[in-house]
Amino acid sequence: MILIDPSHIARCAQLAMILEVSATPKPGNIDRDHNYSDTRFEHFLASAIGVYPVLERAALSKEGVGKLIFDAVAESGKWQRGGNTHFGAFILLIPLVMAARRCGNKKCLKEEVEKIVRETTVNDAVEFYSAFARAGVKVKPVTDLDLKDTDSIGRIKEKGLTLFDMMEISASYDIIAEEWINGFEKTFECSALIQEKIKKDSINDTVVLTFMELLSKNKDTFISTKFDTIKAEEVSMRAGRILQKDDMEMIRKDICQFDEELLNEGVNPGSTADIIIAGLFISLFEGMRF
Amino acid sequence: MILIDPSHIARCAQLAMILEVSATPKPGNIDRDHNYSDTRFEHFLASAIGVYPVLERAALSKEGVGKLIFDAVAESGKWQRGGNTHFGAFILLIPLVMAARRCGNKKCLKEEVEKIVRETTVNDAVEFYSAFARAGVKVKPVTDLDLKDTDSIGRIKEKGLTLFDMMEISASYDIIAEEWINGFEKTFECSALIQEKIKKDSINDTVVLTFMELLSKNKDTFISTKFDTIKAEEVSMRAGRILQKDDMEMIRKDICQFDEELLNEGVNPGSTADIIIAGLFISLFEGMRF
Repeated sequence: MILIDPSHIARCAQLAMILEVSATPKPGNIDRDHNYSDTRFEHFLASAIGVYPVLERAALSKEGVGKLIFDAVAESGKWQRGGNTHFGAFILLIPLVMAARRCGNKKCLKEEVEKIVRETTVNDAVEFYSAFARAGVKVKPVTDLDLKDTDSIGRIKEKGLTLFDMMEISASYDIIAEEWINGFEKTFECSALIQEKIKKDSINDTVVLTFMELLSKNKDTFISTKFDTIKAEEVSMRAGRILQKDDMEMIRKDICQFDEELLNEGVNPGSTADIIIAGLFISLFEGMRF
Repeated sequence: MILIDPSHIARCAQLAMILEVSATPKPGNIDRDHNYSDTRFEHFLASAIGVYPVLERAALSKEGVGKLIFDAVAESGKWQRGGNTHFGAFILLIPLVMAARRCGNKKCLKEEVEKIVRETTVNDAVEFYSAFARAGVKVKPVTDLDLKDTDSIGRIKEKGLTLFDMMEISASYDIIAEEWINGFEKTFECSALIQEKIKKDSINDTVVLTFMELLSKNKDTFISTKFDTIKAEEVSMRAGRILQKDDMEMIRKDICQFDEELLNEGVNPGSTADIIIAGLFISLFEGMRF
């Protein structure tokens, strides 16, 4: 049975964030055993707990996506001092949470979330830009619409760009934006992988192996933005080579070594983690338990 | 500023449960790096997330303590398959959450929680007994009121025992029950220790060191029930000896070894963990951030 209680939906989103950050080792990313110097595991836990009321409001589906993303970033920041934790995740989670309440039935979740992102407005774009500035996220400089430029909001309004339009502009170099344009394709694939793997693996290994599989198939654009496309391709190829090994113990050992290397280089596949959170949300909403 | 929004109070309780189980190493207990065979770290995470609506109802303070504890156990069980996770914690958290909303000011939290537990009714005792049975908790056999005996509820009603009366009966051999009788003395001491330590330690080390200090000062009655009083005393003395060392690195090393030994023996100081959760709740409610 699929519940459509808004609190149930909000808790699925909270738990998705908590399970993602806990799963270890997720090469290059923060997890229960790996911290960065300023941002730590516990900052992600506090962010996931703190954001609850915004998730519940999203489940009620009466407010705009942009405003909800802005409020999610703001609320997350009130509960921890580790800086940006879940900005990318909120971009996927907020419309999914809204869609979950609207359809209450997994068969229309994909359809409903597509409708929600396509119906976003210029106002959503403006709110989103304010959230971007607040979260202090690393971004690719775009000449025409510089995210750090205070004139950008004026130009968004002038051109009448909606949040969906903005994502379309970014889709070529950002897999999170691309999800909005492609009907959350990778997110739903990720959920299918999770729900398959949980039948035989622990929740931790399910997340780690799905993370590796996603990473091997898609260049992580958080890495492309921080380093370059070549680095992102290298990381994906390396993930793919590790998964080709036959022996699970060998795979585990290689994942650990890969993790150490990426952490030393400061290479974190953050966008892949965001898709994992969204995939976990769908899985939990569709009834996955462990 | 102390917020009295019920959602804020409920999130402080959720985060307290998440931070407690994450802190590592907590000798003998489940943490981010240690699982038992049937109950794992992620079961505690899912329980803490799942129980949110009951915590929010408790913060509204319009229902009885017994019914809320029963519902907390039931809701926790819907989100995970690891068995009992937070029963002892709920016994402390539920009245504290109720008190937080009522006073909204830390200066009266202790006073208010004492009032709440002393005002419990026979009906609270009956609901609590049903929760006990549902959670499948290890209990000390009490001849007169066997918790596994279905007649017990009849006898509670016949004797007109309130939940506070029941705790008074158990206080001599259960530190959680003793907290109800002694005005949550150890819980408030625990919160004071946490708020002192967080000034110089990470949140993880704050929890670990407070856990060790509590354990060294009080026999853990979860251990007395599962083994015997001598075992519980041994564990407390050992914790005390470790904390006497001068060098922090030495203390850390000893805590890790102590942890391995207790895990091998199946000795888990579960009641101490419950008090840590309650102490973390008070600290977060009083504004602690990290």
